[in-house]
Amino acid sequence: MSTRAGGPAGGPAVGVDVGGTRVKAGLVDDRGRVLKATARPTPERTAAAATVESLVVEVVHELLGQVPVTRRPAVPVGVGAAGFVDAARGRVVFAPHLSWRDEPLRDRLTARLGRAVLVDNDAHAVAWAEHRFGAGQGESHLVVLTLGTGIGGAILTDGRLQRGRHGLAGEFGHQQLVPGGLPCECGNRGCWEQYASGRALARLAREAALAGGGRAAGLLEAAPDGDAPELTGEHVSRTARQGDPASREILAEVGRWLGVGLAGVVASLDPGTVVVGGGASLAGDLLLDPARETLARTLVGRGHRPVPPVRAARLGGRAGVVGAADLARGAAAGGPSG
Amino acid sequence: MSTRAGGPAGGPAVGVDVGGTRVKAGLVDDRGRVLKATARPTPERTAAAATVESLVVEVVHELLGQVPVTRRPAVPVGVGAAGFVDAARGRVVFAPHLSWRDEPLRDRLTARLGRAVLVDNDAHAVAWAEHRFGAGQGESHLVVLTLGTGIGGAILTDGRLQRGRHGLAGEFGHQQLVPGGLPCECGNRGCWEQYASGRALARLAREAALAGGGRAAGLLEAAPDGDAPELTGEHVSRTARQGDPASREILAEVGRWLGVGLAGVVASLDPGTVVVGGGASLAGDLLLDPARETLARTLVGRGHRPVPPVRAARLGGRAGVVGAADLARGAAAGGPSG
Repeated sequence: MSTRAGGPAGGPAVGVDVGGTRVKAGLVDDRGRVLKATARPTPERTAAAATVESLVVEVVHELLGQVPVTRRPAVPVGVGAAGFVDAARGRVVFAPHLSWRDEPLRDRLTARLGRAVLVDNDAHAVAWAEHRFGAGQGESHLVVLTLGTGIGGAILTDGRLQRGRHGLAGEFGHQQLVPGGLPCECGNRGCWEQYASGRALARLAREAALAGGGRAAGLLEAAPDGDAPELTGEHVSRTARQGDPASREILAEVGRWLGVGLAGVVASLDPGTVVVGGGASLAGDLLLDPARETLARTLVGRGHRPVPPVRAARLGGRAGVVGAADLARGAAAGGPSG
Repeated sequence: MSTRAGGPAGGPAVGVDVGGTRVKAGLVDDRGRVLKATARPTPERTAAAATVESLVVEVVHELLGQVPVTRRPAVPVGVGAAGFVDAARGRVVFAPHLSWRDEPLRDRLTARLGRAVLVDNDAHAVAWAEHRFGAGQGESHLVVLTLGTGIGGAILTDGRLQRGRHGLAGEFGHQQLVPGGLPCECGNRGCWEQYASGRALARLAREAALAGGGRAAGLLEAAPDGDAPELTGEHVSRTARQGDPASREILAEVGRWLGVGLAGVVASLDPGTVVVGGGASLAGDLLLDPARETLARTLVGRGHRPVPPVRAARLGGRAGVVGAADLARGAAAGGPSG
């Protein structure tokens, strides 16, 4: 990462990633490199819509301050937001972690920033970044899953983002996998994301700790103050990489559930490649190998068709920022808009 | 239906629908009307690949015989086949009900018929027909489900068929809905099509009959010789329309499962409209109303987003023939190829 503003042909763009816990932003060049980054904690869910909006304006101004004043007006700005986004109209229809409800975010930011602003779903921004600069480069038919607290997703066909009729496509996480299964925030039971996400890792870690018998000793050592309720997916991934057997079992179980859902997604969409990213995928192959094995074992027509590779995302936590910036640059140029 | 060959601008095309039980074919005009139809029983699964191929050649010649001899060479021919079809290469990768395994059907038929032949998946042909002439007209983002013995499907985005990376997209029926559930021909358990298809209707009808207590009396009256093992989905649909309560309960149960799976499909793809056709959907709203109700009740983000209408297909059993013909006409004209 460099702090040099400006950059090669096309100039930099600002990308903002509005997540449930952090608002991240970066000045990104046209090769997907972050030239300057900044971040703020996301305001509480109860905060007014305008509070989050003002925070976005603030980080954008901070980054624009890195660009020579004469070039500032030409810098495109893109925002990826966690929630249902109608990208065509630039509205956040519904954001579970924010107070936005049918919020005309694009028009408000355009007015406050004095330039066209692109607004899209955060998972779409992540997928676009992986397609342009990461693990999905060169793949015309791509499915990208972002494993965080839940499962975000995006579909690219012929190199273009498929947003669906109302801009809401890619919500893979709420397919029912278990009738009457674990309750989900969406109000249903047995949704895929209850079994294959950061939330699933944390739940299984806490269950292992509560079961006692010393199996979760390694996990509990990693938890703050050794408290089981504090265990997160990140603890599981970290201790698994250090060799902890219980953590590896948990990742394998979650990976198998990941593969079960993926078999349905692949059968439906026939992608050439699947890319899996997000904070809950930090353990890499410890999670992805069981998913690959389950996909290969259960995909309909197996033996008569190619099974797509499942690749780890390459851009990490900056993918949302990079993708939002690149989508904005493409829209400003009237070029590949995703 | 008219038997007049020829027709308005564009002239007729031949469509062939190779299903598990029947090979149907028709001469179709450019408004989707079948001018002349014919059919044969599908050869046994054990028959040589060339036997089915010869049958296709036979029905095509029969229909071409209806066209003035000077115009015959210009008549496009399209084939929709039940199975995994790589449409770009015109190969049948795998057909569960036929002996085709990576069969270069397009090239063989092109050689034998002396003209370019289009080969596609039968569900894609059905969806294209409904999009062009049926319940999906005017909808840019369409999902079409064909409920037969199993579940066939197709996706249209921006008015184009989405075939996926290898031409295999739209296989919705093998999403796992019930872990360890009913065994499926694909080798897995708990696939959606075991719960929401003609096979599901027949299974529930037989179970009702075996349970005794007179609940299935109406169904058994409809069965050949009153034999429970002979009950099919068609019997259920027919007796339900006549008011039989047990049959209506069966349709409602299958409809609810249809809705459960649809909620996952709609969340993933965000279509503007869903069209449901196929022989197992003959009962219309008796099946579709419970599906609509379940979809509206379980779709993620409900209350903050539109729930797409679920419409009954309009072209009935001729959709595959009409769609294959129209896809062939489009390909021959270099026009909308689906």
